[in-house]
Amino acid sequence: MTSKLHLLSNFRIVLCQTSHPGNIGAAARAMKTMGLSNLYLVSPKQFPDKEATSLATNAADLLETAHVCTSLEEALTGCTLVIGLSARKRQLSHELMSSRQAALEAVKTIGDDESNGQQQIALLFGTEMSGLSNAELDLCQLLAMIPTNPDFSSLNVAAAVQVMCYEIRMALLDKDAPLAQLPNNQIKPQADKAVEWASIDEVEGMYQHMESTLINIGFLKPKTPGRIMQRLRRMYARARLEKEEVRILRGIFKLMQSPRPPEA
Amino acid sequence: MTSKLHLLSNFRIVLCQTSHPGNIGAAARAMKTMGLSNLYLVSPKQFPDKEATSLATNAADLLETAHVCTSLEEALTGCTLVIGLSARKRQLSHELMSSRQAALEAVKTIGDDESNGQQQIALLFGTEMSGLSNAELDLCQLLAMIPTNPDFSSLNVAAAVQVMCYEIRMALLDKDAPLAQLPNNQIKPQADKAVEWASIDEVEGMYQHMESTLINIGFLKPKTPGRIMQRLRRMYARARLEKEEVRILRGIFKLMQSPRPPEA
Repeated sequence: MTSKLHLLSNFRIVLCQTSHPGNIGAAARAMKTMGLSNLYLVSPKQFPDKEATSLATNAADLLETAHVCTSLEEALTGCTLVIGLSARKRQLSHELMSSRQAALEAVKTIGDDESNGQQQIALLFGTEMSGLSNAELDLCQLLAMIPTNPDFSSLNVAAAVQVMCYEIRMALLDKDAPLAQLPNNQIKPQADKAVEWASIDEVEGMYQHMESTLINIGFLKPKTPGRIMQRLRRMYARARLEKEEVRILRGIFKLMQSPRPPEA
Repeated sequence: MTSKLHLLSNFRIVLCQTSHPGNIGAAARAMKTMGLSNLYLVSPKQFPDKEATSLATNAADLLETAHVCTSLEEALTGCTLVIGLSARKRQLSHELMSSRQAALEAVKTIGDDESNGQQQIALLFGTEMSGLSNAELDLCQLLAMIPTNPDFSSLNVAAAVQVMCYEIRMALLDKDAPLAQLPNNQIKPQADKAVEWASIDEVEGMYQHMESTLINIGFLKPKTPGRIMQRLRRMYARARLEKEEVRILRGIFKLMQSPRPPEA
């Protein structure tokens, strides 16, 4: 097996509402040391900023090409896997992996098929103070946790970016013995052929369709779809949907709204 | 094999002639997030310093107990293994390992013998500008290299400390269960209560209900439900359903067969 480092370009780092511009600069530097270059900033408090540039040192080119977005959905357009970084356990269920397992899972998702270069994977980092919001978590398919000291888990956001980019690079490098020995028990077996994962926008479109359909048949109250929709979202997020599955589900929603008599 | 995290106290981080006090603070924070606490500073340019304290955030206790030394020999007293961090290959022959291999080697050196608590291991980091000097390298038994982007290998010293401390922690965690210290090992995180998984018969009952409903609305042909039902089964199997999720899905199927008008 050879190195797959060229696949680093399929990864994007998404920083949500970062408060301190210095952290954006330090994150850019961390990315570049590991060979990542796609930086997305969702509503940064202050950007561009000279402290960001200063802390990026010679990675300021990443700041110049950074995509500044006004919504997380915009930053995730075209992604087939969204991994949220979390420092603590969350109330509602999400598939949870260690940072190392998440990196291996991401690399596996891109697949061995080298022609399949369009798979985009996002690593999502929340604010310095409170991490990812529930609405942001709703857009993640899995959560990654960097194992930390339980008495002091406050990893700086750029340090967390450093660790995750390092793990991605290690996972893409020609596997040496210690990496190969890692248990794969959390990694779902897949067919040999490349899976066509649904993109984030396809999945979001499906959720919209689901919500309006469930309101239409009287299952959800139009004013308070929240909690049940969130449960359904997390259930499907755990499954990680393929393109064809999204098509099947939407086909069902369509007929739920205007059923036709069953064939004999 | 159980966790060996108590052996974190056998490690010390040694920073040689650090120029920027902020890096000392950030390194202290990085250490503490991974559970390391022994910090040795060899001739720091400026220490103590309020920038160091500020960047350490709540790891300032490590700065207070840091050992400030005037020579590297003093900082290494009692160590049985000294690992130098290097950003590049060195002229003189040293055993060179990746950061991951070096961490595993260090853990192996401490050994499984828990009475052997006096084994002290140092991780040595050079100056921001030029790394370790040749005289400092002479005191190392092995060199560790963090795999970086060959075009931009300038890892910040605190970022390098973060990566090495992370690898040490990962190496000490139970290798057979990397999630061991994560909440609710190997299952999805929930607030407090354990996850109530649906039983096989509950899931099968749900599939029966699903199939008859999909036939009823005209989505499946009664004679050939096979392939699509198989896909749906596989999709829900990947999600691993909880009892409550089965209840939600069956509630939807019920209303699909006899919808009620949506509430206002």
